[in-house]
Amino acid sequence: MKSLLWAFWYILPAYFANASPVLVGGGRPIDGGRFWRDGRRILGDGKTWRGFAGGVAIGTAVGMVQYFITPSFYGSFRTAFLLAFALSFGALFGDLVGSFFKRRANLPRGYPAIGLDQLGFLISALAFAYPVKTLDSGKIIFLLIVSPFIHWGANYFAYRMGWKGVPW
Amino acid sequence: MKSLLWAFWYILPAYFANASPVLVGGGRPIDGGRFWRDGRRILGDGKTWRGFAGGVAIGTAVGMVQYFITPSFYGSFRTAFLLAFALSFGALFGDLVGSFFKRRANLPRGYPAIGLDQLGFLISALAFAYPVKTLDSGKIIFLLIVSPFIHWGANYFAYRMGWKGVPW
Repeated sequence: MKSLLWAFWYILPAYFANASPVLVGGGRPIDGGRFWRDGRRILGDGKTWRGFAGGVAIGTAVGMVQYFITPSFYGSFRTAFLLAFALSFGALFGDLVGSFFKRRANLPRGYPAIGLDQLGFLISALAFAYPVKTLDSGKIIFLLIVSPFIHWGANYFAYRMGWKGVPW
Repeated sequence: MKSLLWAFWYILPAYFANASPVLVGGGRPIDGGRFWRDGRRILGDGKTWRGFAGGVAIGTAVGMVQYFITPSFYGSFRTAFLLAFALSFGALFGDLVGSFFKRRANLPRGYPAIGLDQLGFLISALAFAYPVKTLDSGKIIFLLIVSPFIHWGANYFAYRMGWKGVPW
């Protein structure tokens, strides 16, 4: 049971990175307003350089704070920093890839893709972080099952707080 | 590289179980035509007892054949059988849970839920199989990344062969 809490502790920078564009987003879209060959936007106006950079910065900062709380979990500051950076970059990269596929499926911006929205960022974060530090398979499966519910709860909270216009 | 092929070999019964209702499906719906409190069907007509039982049987049979090809991978016939059953049951159980959420989101039967359709059955299969035999985290992450593409390819093939009415 206690070991499952370590799974959350491990993935925390990815959650923060994934959630932060809601707060720090806006600005120039990453696709520069350009279109794919299907005539639709490559990524859309929802994915911006500021949201991406801000999310990576916030997620990495979270990891640095985590190191000072539980240094033995990471072994070294270097590992904690690299892990948090990889998790944050991976989470936001996975979010961009997800947006690309959503635009290709012609889903409008902000429209939910059940599964992709909750799991895409997580799987990408786990993949980017794998060379730095990974979890055993039981904890990974646990995160894959509980993350969608955390994601829905967090989005519903953000919606009720007025931070987001839609409850997903 | 070769070890990644073992990841496919491990998960093969789940893929077969997930794909087989297209061929063996039909018959009485599992929800018996009943409705959830939101006024929509619990699971819908697409999820039937015959599809579920047929999928578990086919997936488990695949696992028994796998044992005779690579007995040392499983150690014992009992492990191979239990693993194939758990992967197949888990895959189809995950598919049912996915359908439940799709009905709640008011997606019509057969409408794609990007991510859930490709990952829900896989995560559920990995969870049910975990107590019998699991993979290391690198192989699990690999399966999570490549499975959506295999899923799309297989569905497109089934559509072109006339087995399915829609290409997803």
